[in-house]
Amino acid sequence: MKPIQVGLLGIGTVGSGVFNVLQRNQEEIRRRAGRGIEISMVADLDAARAKTVVGDTAQVVSDARAIIANPDIDIVVELIGGYGIAKALVLEAIAAGKHVVTANKALLAVHGTEIFAAASAKGVMVAFEAAVAGGIPIIKALREGLTANRIQWIAGIINGTTNFILSEMRDKGLDFDVVLKEAQRLGYAEADPTFDIEGVDAAHKATIMSAIAFGIPVQFDKAYVEGITKLGAADIRYAEQLGYRIKLLGIAKRRQVAGAASGQVDGVELRVHPTLVPAKRLIANVEGAMNAVVVQGDAVGTTLYYGKGAGSEPTASAVIADLVDIARLASADPEHRVPHLAFQSHTLDQAMGTLPVLPMSEVVTSYYLRLRVADEAGVLAKVTGLLATAGISIDAVLQREADEVGGEGSTQTDLIILTHDTREGTMNDAIAQMQALPTVLGPITRIRKEELN
Amino acid sequence: MKPIQVGLLGIGTVGSGVFNVLQRNQEEIRRRAGRGIEISMVADLDAARAKTVVGDTAQVVSDARAIIANPDIDIVVELIGGYGIAKALVLEAIAAGKHVVTANKALLAVHGTEIFAAASAKGVMVAFEAAVAGGIPIIKALREGLTANRIQWIAGIINGTTNFILSEMRDKGLDFDVVLKEAQRLGYAEADPTFDIEGVDAAHKATIMSAIAFGIPVQFDKAYVEGITKLGAADIRYAEQLGYRIKLLGIAKRRQVAGAASGQVDGVELRVHPTLVPAKRLIANVEGAMNAVVVQGDAVGTTLYYGKGAGSEPTASAVIADLVDIARLASADPEHRVPHLAFQSHTLDQAMGTLPVLPMSEVVTSYYLRLRVADEAGVLAKVTGLLATAGISIDAVLQREADEVGGEGSTQTDLIILTHDTREGTMNDAIAQMQALPTVLGPITRIRKEELN
Repeated sequence: MKPIQVGLLGIGTVGSGVFNVLQRNQEEIRRRAGRGIEISMVADLDAARAKTVVGDTAQVVSDARAIIANPDIDIVVELIGGYGIAKALVLEAIAAGKHVVTANKALLAVHGTEIFAAASAKGVMVAFEAAVAGGIPIIKALREGLTANRIQWIAGIINGTTNFILSEMRDKGLDFDVVLKEAQRLGYAEADPTFDIEGVDAAHKATIMSAIAFGIPVQFDKAYVEGITKLGAADIRYAEQLGYRIKLLGIAKRRQVAGAASGQVDGVELRVHPTLVPAKRLIANVEGAMNAVVVQGDAVGTTLYYGKGAGSEPTASAVIADLVDIARLASADPEHRVPHLAFQSHTLDQAMGTLPVLPMSEVVTSYYLRLRVADEAGVLAKVTGLLATAGISIDAVLQREADEVGGEGSTQTDLIILTHDTREGTMNDAIAQMQALPTVLGPITRIRKEELN
Repeated sequence: MKPIQVGLLGIGTVGSGVFNVLQRNQEEIRRRAGRGIEISMVADLDAARAKTVVGDTAQVVSDARAIIANPDIDIVVELIGGYGIAKALVLEAIAAGKHVVTANKALLAVHGTEIFAAASAKGVMVAFEAAVAGGIPIIKALREGLTANRIQWIAGIINGTTNFILSEMRDKGLDFDVVLKEAQRLGYAEADPTFDIEGVDAAHKATIMSAIAFGIPVQFDKAYVEGITKLGAADIRYAEQLGYRIKLLGIAKRRQVAGAASGQVDGVELRVHPTLVPAKRLIANVEGAMNAVVVQGDAVGTTLYYGKGAGSEPTASAVIADLVDIARLASADPEHRVPHLAFQSHTLDQAMGTLPVLPMSEVVTSYYLRLRVADEAGVLAKVTGLLATAGISIDAVLQREADEVGGEGSTQTDLIILTHDTREGTMNDAIAQMQALPTVLGPITRIRKEELN
């Protein structure tokens, strides 16, 4: 059978990786795929750079549409990124009857519904293993490996930049700003790190996973997104003393109706925020720029997937796995091929009706609270009294000596409270009331906590 | 489309799990698979027990061949186990044109080549996710998720019984025999635990993974198999002091030719034995009956897969994932469907010629040695002198005070040596020479060590 012909849109870091790995491992990949996989065209605005990568093995063009228009191209790989031209090109490639492979999480998290519908209508595949957690085959695990399960929740370290920063902050006791600069110097953070440190990138990925896990459409606009920029070294230290680590988690959770029959749910939680995780959990020990995703299914229990979430060849590993999948399965009846989002697309609407993404105020989780308080009698009683009135039950309290916190002679101290599960809306009200107490001297820090068991 | 019809051969622990999960999650599974999946026949010698599980939903028969002979059955699920009748029934089901799903690692590790060849000839699928690491979708990860990679090595905790025993030995400082009895009482070890504690079960699974990772046939008879029955609490303690944990690992490694051009290999190491692993590795922190597999690929780097390796519903999760795969992909051209062992079957012979499984004496690894020695001057010099003469280089030495080991007034002590990489044959010779020294007072303990980085 003749080799499958691939056109790359964009040959930067990931594109070069795809080209190099396909070249280096072509023999094994051909043995696995049942046919060769050849990059025969590459589109890049920087044609000179593209030529240094591919040499004479592929035709280099500056116009991506020349690839889409070429009837010999079977698969278009979109590695441009963003929502703009990338969206147009992906839709045009689909319209031209090409299978599409993309690493573009932003595009899928926002426009996935439109893109997958177009692909289904045309009978082509859109594969996107590289869009979530780089080289870890987590999309495949969710979409195919765990199909027996009612997925209960997913919690993942799905942004390497922020995990690197948090690891360094904990290891070295440094503050966020200092470590961010170091991460930028080492290439772990971009010059404009906003998407990473504000949690947007993780939210894109969590959105995609939520759709595959629960059979709902991608709904990035409903995700709650909170980054790590306000985390202080003190919170990381206090968390450690209480047996926890702080990780930026992307969480998608099926919310059980309280007191209802088993399995009845009223919605999906979709949120990204710094999270206290028990230090003994494997995911709490994922360090540096590594990624890991924990998936809890009702039959399988807890599973975890770990690996590199970014980088040229790890991401290429995922892109090429998609190419091999397409080479293997292109001949399957499109109606019964693996659905893009794990569930057959005609069942998505029905699911959307029953499983809305819940507003953050309806989320139920436990909390870490840090209050800077006056070091005087009765403060703890007042604070805990307010929480009791709000119906919030306390799991643990850590009160520091004033001298430890503010230096000798200090009249301020930190009061740390861990709560049991509480509705976020209830917690918001309680925090507002505590904040109004005259003995609470600074803004209250609130970090959510997940036991992940 | 009409539901796919499944016949179960055997409805014990795993079979009941398959039935229950398919019932409970039928709506989600149907949405994922694109059609219903129904167990319409069950064969079990204990028909009464089978009826208590399936009620009136499926026909219960005592003769498995009645299922194979039924033209309405699309998929036969073999959950009998062992090499005997299970092999005959699997081959008969294939001959009858049924797809087969099996959790039978022993059967596949020994007779896989024959079974897969029969299935390929008939154009049916044999799926076996449940055969390795229970609910963890590791077969799918290796066969489909990591197809871009030249897999360098796999190292897995793939037997829950032995990991439970090792975890308890470490936690509580107890000896093997004591913990084994406890594990039997708790149901983590069988009444006859031989297959688990002697490493045979892990070797079956490692054999299957080696075939998928390297494109070689299953060759269980060439695997080196060593269990945990000779491990002492002292070795676990000494390992801990040196920064290591002891795990029973199944290892499959592509062996690089020393000094040869990149990628040139001379064979595959396939071995199961207790192994020192650095305590800081995630896999060293996999406790109790949990499983985890680390896979190192040249593009993706290190990845890890963690979850429950046994039990009714975790194993059922894997069996049902296979059923969904078949429901989705049955319509694909058999020539270009996912190959059973990841590589197209006609390329296996060619690979066997170039990648033999190496004899254990050719394996290269590092070692932990414990010598019970006379507490007198010059012993260390003699031992290290012998190692130096053999060309074995030493990484670390730990010598205990005699009193710590043998009690006050003792004239014996333990000498612990960690070596750098050495050929096993060289180490065998060196151990024989050290054993002959008059100051070496008991049998030398040798445990292999892997850095897994």
